[in-house]
Amino acid sequence: MGEENKVTLHGSWASPYVKRVELALKVKGIPFEYVEEDLRDKSPLLLKYNPIHKKVPVLVHNGKPVSESFVILEYIDETWKNQPRLFPQDPYERARVRFWASFIQQVIDCMLKVFKGVEQDKALEEFYEKLSVLEDGIKNSSLGITTTNIQGRDLGLLDIIIVITLGAYEVQEEVFGVKILSPEKTPLLYSWVTTLIDLPIVKGITPPRDKVVPFLHFLKDVVFKAPMN
Amino acid sequence: MGEENKVTLHGSWASPYVKRVELALKVKGIPFEYVEEDLRDKSPLLLKYNPIHKKVPVLVHNGKPVSESFVILEYIDETWKNQPRLFPQDPYERARVRFWASFIQQVIDCMLKVFKGVEQDKALEEFYEKLSVLEDGIKNSSLGITTTNIQGRDLGLLDIIIVITLGAYEVQEEVFGVKILSPEKTPLLYSWVTTLIDLPIVKGITPPRDKVVPFLHFLKDVVFKAPMN
Repeated sequence: MGEENKVTLHGSWASPYVKRVELALKVKGIPFEYVEEDLRDKSPLLLKYNPIHKKVPVLVHNGKPVSESFVILEYIDETWKNQPRLFPQDPYERARVRFWASFIQQVIDCMLKVFKGVEQDKALEEFYEKLSVLEDGIKNSSLGITTTNIQGRDLGLLDIIIVITLGAYEVQEEVFGVKILSPEKTPLLYSWVTTLIDLPIVKGITPPRDKVVPFLHFLKDVVFKAPMN
Repeated sequence: MGEENKVTLHGSWASPYVKRVELALKVKGIPFEYVEEDLRDKSPLLLKYNPIHKKVPVLVHNGKPVSESFVILEYIDETWKNQPRLFPQDPYERARVRFWASFIQQVIDCMLKVFKGVEQDKALEEFYEKLSVLEDGIKNSSLGITTTNIQGRDLGLLDIIIVITLGAYEVQEEVFGVKILSPEKTPLLYSWVTTLIDLPIVKGITPPRDKVVPFLHFLKDVVFKAPMN
C-alpha cells in the first residue's frame, strides 16, 4: 500500500457505526490502518479530523477526512470502484437500497428506546412493528435478499447495515431482557441475520462476547440511567 | 414529453421536503406533472406509491415510485445526467455536500423545536449554535459558496436545501416571534439565503405569503399545541 492511497479508520470497538465502515472496507478488500479512539479522552487527531461532531467513525483517505457512517459508505463505493459494489449501479435500485437503509435507521432509533427502558412496552411494540414492515419490505422488494443466497454472493450495503444493527441480538436479549429477533414473527430477518453473523468476514469484525456483555451492562445500568437520557 | 419518460410529483404545497424536490426538478429542467395531495385524506395513489410512510414527496418516474426527499434528490441527479449536476462529481466533494446536507437536517430538527416552543430558550440557543457551525463550515469548506457568485452559477444541492430550510425566515420570525436569521451573527448564511430567495427559479416555487401566514398560525396554535407534540 503506497502512501498515495493511505486509508485510516478512527473508531471505537463498541460503535456499530464504526463497525459498518470496518465491514465495508473488508468487503471491498481495501487495506487500512485502524486507530482505536478513547471516547472519554479524544485524540487531537480525531478533533482535527471531525471538528464538527467530534465522533467516530472518521475515515482518512490520503490525509482527507470523511465522517458520518453513511457518507463514508457512499464515499468508499464511489472511490474504489472495484467489485463487489456496495450499492447497485442502477439508479432506481440504488434509490431502493437508500430507502431501506434510511428505514433501518428508524429501526435503530426504536431499538435504542427499547434499551433505554422508558415506556418500554410502547417502545417494543413500535420496534416489532418496524421489524415487521422491514420483513415485508425486503420480501416484496425483489432486492435479491433471500434466506438461501447469502453464502454464494458478495455482501451489499443492506447486508452490512442489517448485520451490524441486529447481529448482536442474542447478547442484547440477555442483557436487556427483551426479545429482539424472533424466528416466528420475522423469519426472513432472522434467517438473513443469523446467516450473516456466521460468515467468516463478519466474525472477523465481531467484538468478543466477554467484552460486549460488560459494555452492554454499563450502557444499561449507568449510561441509560443518567438524567440526560 | 413522451410516455416513456413520464415524471409525476405527489406533493403538498406546505411541505418543505416536497419543495426541495420541486426546485431540484426545475433546476435540472425536467418536465413533470404535479399532483397536490390532501394529507388529511390521502389518495389511493399516494398510499399505493408510498405504503411504508404514506408521506409526500413521492416522485413517480415511468410508473416507479421513489420516496424520501434526499433519496429522490440523489435519484434525480443519477438518472438525468444533464447539466447542471446537483451533486459534485468528485467523490470527496460529494461526501462533503452529503455531510453538510445531513448537518442541515440537524438544523431543521432544532428549528422545529424552536417553533414548538417547549423550553424555547434552550432550543433557540442550540439552533443559533448550529447555524454558527454551519456558517463557519460553509465559509471554510471551499465548497464554492460565497455571497457574490450565486447569480452567475447553477444551483446545487446545498443551495436547494438551504433556501427551502431558511427561505421563509421572515414570515416564520413574524408568526413565531423569534429571530431566525441574523445578518450580524451569520452574515454568510444571511446573504446566501436572501440572494437565493430573490432568484426567479426560487420565487417560482415559493408559496404566497397569504397562504403561508395562516398555515404557520395553524401549526403554532393547533398542531404544536396538541398533546402529542
